[in-house]
Amino acid sequence: MTAASAAPTLYRRLAADYSLAMEMGTLKAGERMPSVRELMRRHEVSLSTALQTLRHLEDLGQLEARPRVGYFVRDARPAGLAPASEPDLSQPVQPLPQQHFAGINEHISLMLERGRQADVQVDLGGATPPPELFDRGYLNQAAARLLREQPDLLVLGRSMMGSHPDFQRAMARRALAAGIHVAPADVLATTGNSEAVSLALAAVASPGDVVAVESPTYYGLLQVVESLQMQALEIPCSPRTGLSLEALELALQTQPRLKAVVVVPELQMPLGTRIPDEHKARLVELCAAHGVALIEDDSYGLFVESSQPVRPIKAWDRLPGHVIYCEAFNKSMAPGLRQGWMNAGQWHGRVQMLKFARSRGTQTLAQLLAAACVGSPAHLRNLQRLKQQLRRQREGMAQLVARFFPLGTRLSLPPGGLSLWLELPAGVSTSALFTQALARGIRTAPGSMFSNSGRYEHCMRLGCTLPVDGVVEQACRDLGAMACAQLGQPARHG
Amino acid sequence: MTAASAAPTLYRRLAADYSLAMEMGTLKAGERMPSVRELMRRHEVSLSTALQTLRHLEDLGQLEARPRVGYFVRDARPAGLAPASEPDLSQPVQPLPQQHFAGINEHISLMLERGRQADVQVDLGGATPPPELFDRGYLNQAAARLLREQPDLLVLGRSMMGSHPDFQRAMARRALAAGIHVAPADVLATTGNSEAVSLALAAVASPGDVVAVESPTYYGLLQVVESLQMQALEIPCSPRTGLSLEALELALQTQPRLKAVVVVPELQMPLGTRIPDEHKARLVELCAAHGVALIEDDSYGLFVESSQPVRPIKAWDRLPGHVIYCEAFNKSMAPGLRQGWMNAGQWHGRVQMLKFARSRGTQTLAQLLAAACVGSPAHLRNLQRLKQQLRRQREGMAQLVARFFPLGTRLSLPPGGLSLWLELPAGVSTSALFTQALARGIRTAPGSMFSNSGRYEHCMRLGCTLPVDGVVEQACRDLGAMACAQLGQPARHG
Repeated sequence: MTAASAAPTLYRRLAADYSLAMEMGTLKAGERMPSVRELMRRHEVSLSTALQTLRHLEDLGQLEARPRVGYFVRDARPAGLAPASEPDLSQPVQPLPQQHFAGINEHISLMLERGRQADVQVDLGGATPPPELFDRGYLNQAAARLLREQPDLLVLGRSMMGSHPDFQRAMARRALAAGIHVAPADVLATTGNSEAVSLALAAVASPGDVVAVESPTYYGLLQVVESLQMQALEIPCSPRTGLSLEALELALQTQPRLKAVVVVPELQMPLGTRIPDEHKARLVELCAAHGVALIEDDSYGLFVESSQPVRPIKAWDRLPGHVIYCEAFNKSMAPGLRQGWMNAGQWHGRVQMLKFARSRGTQTLAQLLAAACVGSPAHLRNLQRLKQQLRRQREGMAQLVARFFPLGTRLSLPPGGLSLWLELPAGVSTSALFTQALARGIRTAPGSMFSNSGRYEHCMRLGCTLPVDGVVEQACRDLGAMACAQLGQPARHG
Repeated sequence: MTAASAAPTLYRRLAADYSLAMEMGTLKAGERMPSVRELMRRHEVSLSTALQTLRHLEDLGQLEARPRVGYFVRDARPAGLAPASEPDLSQPVQPLPQQHFAGINEHISLMLERGRQADVQVDLGGATPPPELFDRGYLNQAAARLLREQPDLLVLGRSMMGSHPDFQRAMARRALAAGIHVAPADVLATTGNSEAVSLALAAVASPGDVVAVESPTYYGLLQVVESLQMQALEIPCSPRTGLSLEALELALQTQPRLKAVVVVPELQMPLGTRIPDEHKARLVELCAAHGVALIEDDSYGLFVESSQPVRPIKAWDRLPGHVIYCEAFNKSMAPGLRQGWMNAGQWHGRVQMLKFARSRGTQTLAQLLAAACVGSPAHLRNLQRLKQQLRRQREGMAQLVARFFPLGTRLSLPPGGLSLWLELPAGVSTSALFTQALARGIRTAPGSMFSNSGRYEHCMRLGCTLPVDGVVEQACRDLGAMACAQLGQPARHG
């Protein structure tokens, strides 16, 4: 989550207004922004504020400066690439029959294992930033300081008892800044978000129950649902607004065993969707009305590139608390730390009990390290740098897709995050592409990993964690050529 | 596990022989050991070997030296305290009805929570060594060195993919030294043994299935079983030989849903039993014959005080592997690290998949730290010191029980470990004692936490993690007086 500062500075407020205008289409890509002078006059602000506004929007990638001409609304999407398509809502939404469902865990494990065993030269399948993108210095210093100042840390049994009070307070403060009211005692430290979501599901549903998930969704979630012997109900997602509220409402009315809804509200994996605030509010209402748990996996809120504050769904929650909020710092701070936290609303006691039964507490050192670093200037600087680098990489990858992938390929170009979602023309099998590419040392993530429905065989997630250099360009050229060959088309030469 | 050195030195072999003779009763408590001269003559050994033999047995607490007289077989059990009683095998062994069973998790959570909330002055309920008993220096140095030599450790995403190869190799070497053949790739890093046992159960059994456990057993296991919606079948345990093989065999024959047996073979918690080798072999045979998983929780093997090598049950296992071996270093090396590992035999693939679905990998830093420290001289020295200190504390606590607890109290005095198991006279309620004692700042662990059967209401686990000083003596005096009062007897004055 991004802390919504109590009083945003003037230039940030102004930038947020223009940002919104661009997102709503009031200002379109390629259009000219008001000049410095116009901004000063229109909004009665100083020269410095007007300049800061424009530079801030440029930093966010929403404007581009053309020297001596002015600022223009930037279009990061390469020409010729349509956005990912809207789902077909005419199909009935039903849980897949058990026999169809069983095995996604093995399928995914197999794909991951094949990727691990192969001699991978270019990894376009992953969505974790490589170590070079992190400032490890401040983390290592903080770790060394903690061990020096609290020499008993590794030999203290307290961690067996759960969450550390310092970590709990730090997370409760974060939550408050994002509009969530959580008592420190209700913060539960977790091993990343996988554990949090798994605990949440185990707390609110039983084997045989139905869990509504986004379609397509992160494969890890499908694994958790199957490993708990629950059934995933895939709700169609719009790349613009996230899961279809109509389809969800119908499911809530017709599926008596539906016990939980899991969403990634910001930069949904793999579509990259941000759920609009009105939808967030409606989601909370719907779930509360049906007495169903809404599990919010906020893995990517910190990666959103926007001048407007990011508001977690949990901020709309009311007592007794139907939203289970989960946040992790794996991707934004330290993948090796595996630190996350959750607040389980009315299910807090049950989640705490399950966590204790499963693995006792979470290592104290990792908790204290995350607490010490999460709001630190060094971390915020690194996050800023990380986001800018990822934007360059996403846009660079999108250009390569436009140049080399078959004509008619569509893609989502999300406002932040670690990957793109591609829809190739019908007829392409990304499972076959996975095998072909792996033989050439290129790892990809085919659509079949992100759903049980078989609907995404022509889709794939394209990781954007690498700098776009000659090696990555060649890999995309190869991938594109293989996809063209599947369609019986000649390779494109960009 | 204790590494069984390939070629034990002569004095160790001799000591092992005498040790066995004492355990079998050939040499009884209070009897005189052969003198140095006799040993030299009988076994044709040097003066130095004879002396080393005697000193080694003294170090292990099995002999005591009486100056100018000689060595005598030591009896650590205070006069007047009978050993814990044998189980009543005439009762049928059946899974408890579901309604009786449900709620142990809540009961235990409540007891633990009450202990946490109270103003505890003397903790006689826990079984984790306090930080003072650990040498934190070598651990902190090793952690600092790791972060210096591998500065990317905290920002590397590799840990998300599971177990670190260095950790896997280190554990496979440990296993080999104990007579277990495990390929490094089949070592799975876990967050302590709670996670390992929980994963093992989830891999081999489903909700509604039956799990055979020792009775009494560690409350954490009862929590895991209930949280997985399985049913615990409590198998009576002899304090001398562990779970009744007859009762287990009957259960295997009559319970079609029995899918797993969980045992703590060394210093069983809470009885302190060591399962004899013949029983270990028979256990493996029985489980293999019925196609049932045998889950071995080796949390305390490292704490055994014996001159003879400790052999895990897994050493008797044959392909395809019916024994799931779990070891943790929480209690022996660093409670704050929460590091453990497991080998799941034929269920390895499934356990790995479940682990990935639940929480991805285990933090790399903790894995590497455990790998670096576990066989180090500093760790072995600390372990030796820890064991000697714990022996003093166990024996000191046993003396206090003999002085202050009601006449007729029985106790197990195990050859190692962190606690004693007391059986108070019928009529004492240790649940009531828990409440009374907590009000005086003394935390205890009543028998009701260690079983679902209601059989141990007059029993309790007495933690021996504190040095026996005036404060602990007063706490035991108070506990004893409260128990006497429950029986309508006057307090004893020791």
